[in-house]
Amino acid sequence: MFKIPDWAFEFHGHLCPFMPIGYRMGSLALQKLGVERCKDHEMHVFSEMGVGHPQTCMQDGIMAVTGATFGKNMFERLYYGKIAATFWYPGINGAIRIYLRNEFQDKMAPHEFFTYRKKSIEPSQIPDNVSQDIINMVLTATDEELFTTTLMPDYTYKPVKGSFNKAACEICGEYVFERYLRVKDGKRICIPCAGHEPDEKVFYHPEIH
Amino acid sequence: MFKIPDWAFEFHGHLCPFMPIGYRMGSLALQKLGVERCKDHEMHVFSEMGVGHPQTCMQDGIMAVTGATFGKNMFERLYYGKIAATFWYPGINGAIRIYLRNEFQDKMAPHEFFTYRKKSIEPSQIPDNVSQDIINMVLTATDEELFTTTLMPDYTYKPVKGSFNKAACEICGEYVFERYLRVKDGKRICIPCAGHEPDEKVFYHPEIH
Repeated sequence: MFKIPDWAFEFHGHLCPFMPIGYRMGSLALQKLGVERCKDHEMHVFSEMGVGHPQTCMQDGIMAVTGATFGKNMFERLYYGKIAATFWYPGINGAIRIYLRNEFQDKMAPHEFFTYRKKSIEPSQIPDNVSQDIINMVLTATDEELFTTTLMPDYTYKPVKGSFNKAACEICGEYVFERYLRVKDGKRICIPCAGHEPDEKVFYHPEIH
Repeated sequence: MFKIPDWAFEFHGHLCPFMPIGYRMGSLALQKLGVERCKDHEMHVFSEMGVGHPQTCMQDGIMAVTGATFGKNMFERLYYGKIAATFWYPGINGAIRIYLRNEFQDKMAPHEFFTYRKKSIEPSQIPDNVSQDIINMVLTATDEELFTTTLMPDYTYKPVKGSFNKAACEICGEYVFERYLRVKDGKRICIPCAGHEPDEKVFYHPEIH
């Protein structure tokens, strides 16, 4: 049976099947790319998940096993509403996309775990034996039962270039990294002091093709 | 000295001062709000960090201590380029904003750790004693030396309502959560099959005021 370290469950906060699915997905990505868990800023993950739907817990599992964490800016959401992610590693041509097969999604769907979830019962309130049973379903499946893996030879991504430069906002006095400084009445200020929001939003979308 | 569990460093992947700063920031937020670490979908965190700047590692520390993880959709980025975050908890009026004081940022800046970082040397390649020294600076500081905390009594946030509904894309056959299904030539399809990107992007911005 596939093993997941206890700390990954501790980080995630509750027992559920999707953190383990993400852990296995990330583990398969490392294996397919032939790389080790990332310590710094190596692998970038592009998750196809969005908001307003369940099963996003998968993303915590991917971060835990790959070391490509959101905090290190290695993890982006693409908002496609799919249980899939693409894994890109610097120096390796192309990328690997992994999707949780419809057949496995259908196999899990009737499980008692989801009967609770659809009644809005949170995972920590579901009996442990129910959660452990569906987790075991994930841990005993083969990679082939779980995932469709696609090699994307032409996939390119250009990571953002970083800068340490910063300055204090001339209104509130707080430090701001240069990219996010704005100018108003000749002063260098932060976005909240500029009052541009909520009319304008600043987003980041990874340069992938 | 403030204690951080080993697994938080293991999750993060390397020794650096910003994961611990985030851990302390999140710990202070839990204390100020009078709540426990989150198991499920409770606290929401709005980080003021963005892309293209360093020190974002703070966000992994916040996730580790609060349990408000990106994978559970409890963690959003606001792209202001500041070392700050706001913590919102359902059922508690308002929110708490915590900012890493300029004075502490200035105190850390001359440390040898950043001499390495500004030469693009990754944290895992910096001698452990150098990293441990700056981490100790973080762990031995008081909350008051580290942070400015602001109570925001009028802060409101409306979490996204979720739905389990999904359907297979009528082109590629993959399952898609309803919010992200699109229609083209009368077919219900996914965003990549619709070919709307890269012209159109789908984002999420939290409804905060």
